[in-house]
Amino acid sequence: MQGGLSRMRSMNVYLLKKASLLFIAAIVIVTQPLVAMASSGFVAGQGLLPFDSNPNHGNARSVEVMATGYTAGVESTGKRPGNPGYGITYSGVKVRRDYVSTIAADPKVFPIGSILYIPGYGYGVVADTGSAIKGHKIDLYFETIKQVYKEWGKRSVTVQVIHQGDGKMTEAWLQKINQVVKAEQRIPQSMFAS
Amino acid sequence: MQGGLSRMRSMNVYLLKKASLLFIAAIVIVTQPLVAMASSGFVAGQGLLPFDSNPNHGNARSVEVMATGYTAGVESTGKRPGNPGYGITYSGVKVRRDYVSTIAADPKVFPIGSILYIPGYGYGVVADTGSAIKGHKIDLYFETIKQVYKEWGKRSVTVQVIHQGDGKMTEAWLQKINQVVKAEQRIPQSMFAS
Repeated sequence: MQGGLSRMRSMNVYLLKKASLLFIAAIVIVTQPLVAMASSGFVAGQGLLPFDSNPNHGNARSVEVMATGYTAGVESTGKRPGNPGYGITYSGVKVRRDYVSTIAADPKVFPIGSILYIPGYGYGVVADTGSAIKGHKIDLYFETIKQVYKEWGKRSVTVQVIHQGDGKMTEAWLQKINQVVKAEQRIPQSMFAS
Repeated sequence: MQGGLSRMRSMNVYLLKKASLLFIAAIVIVTQPLVAMASSGFVAGQGLLPFDSNPNHGNARSVEVMATGYTAGVESTGKRPGNPGYGITYSGVKVRRDYVSTIAADPKVFPIGSILYIPGYGYGVVADTGSAIKGHKIDLYFETIKQVYKEWGKRSVTVQVIHQGDGKMTEAWLQKINQVVKAEQRIPQSMFAS
């Protein structure tokens, strides 16, 4: 019996090991496409885009620019869907978020048709212009306002916790705090003294 | 007559001077609030905001968070002007870009009523929540989409100039480049060989 129990134990260990391997294999099969998507850069909403990793253009000239995002919409172009010029860039080509996306620049700095590699965005071709896009500024095309917010307009910041809330607040309290800060140019420590 | 003309001339000069002084006074009156706004840090579109400089809360706890911008508009809240909930935060107070602005956070991390100091934005009071604002994420209120783009959503990046354009481009050319990059995962040097 002792030997039989030992065999059963080792059989159990064997089955457990086999099950574990199957489980790991299943995880690999399920997650492989996700990993492939991540490495190709296509993970929506996480700021990863095609060729987020530097594609290594060794001899390319580097230029520092200030980059903002924009869409084809009314908030950026003044045009709404239905307007014949909606979604059409200065160059005539349609706006495009793709392996090579359309971007706006100052054509005196980057002539129409110039191709830039922008870390965190990917390749952009200068197809558009903008009244505020002068000098070393570029505007990156995104399909939606939310994408501009989430994929370009986020910053990691270290904030200071000035006051721990208790779960509620009123308009009168917020108004009072604004008056105090307006007058004193900062929140006085005394404000939250219990 | 000579004397009369001279008196008329000096009268004219006098009126002109008086008008000039009035004009200057008018300019001062008109621009004074603008100058005051600028010195208090209210310069729209330049990223300068009240208390952009650290107001020094020596003993305040510091936390690193990922911060995005949002507006009261449909792209962020799903609500349009006219909707009874438009511009009203989770806490009940109205959205506000002020000395202390309303912001959204995860109330499990920062309870409603908590006050944070956010470098590059100013003081924010946690008044709102958001389905995507969980954990160490915060959403900063701005009055317009353009302000989110310009005051929060800009980054200084070093771009690589892969190709210098010649001032024009076509849809067919852009399509071809996208096909090549899709296949080769980068722009081959040969693409622009003359």
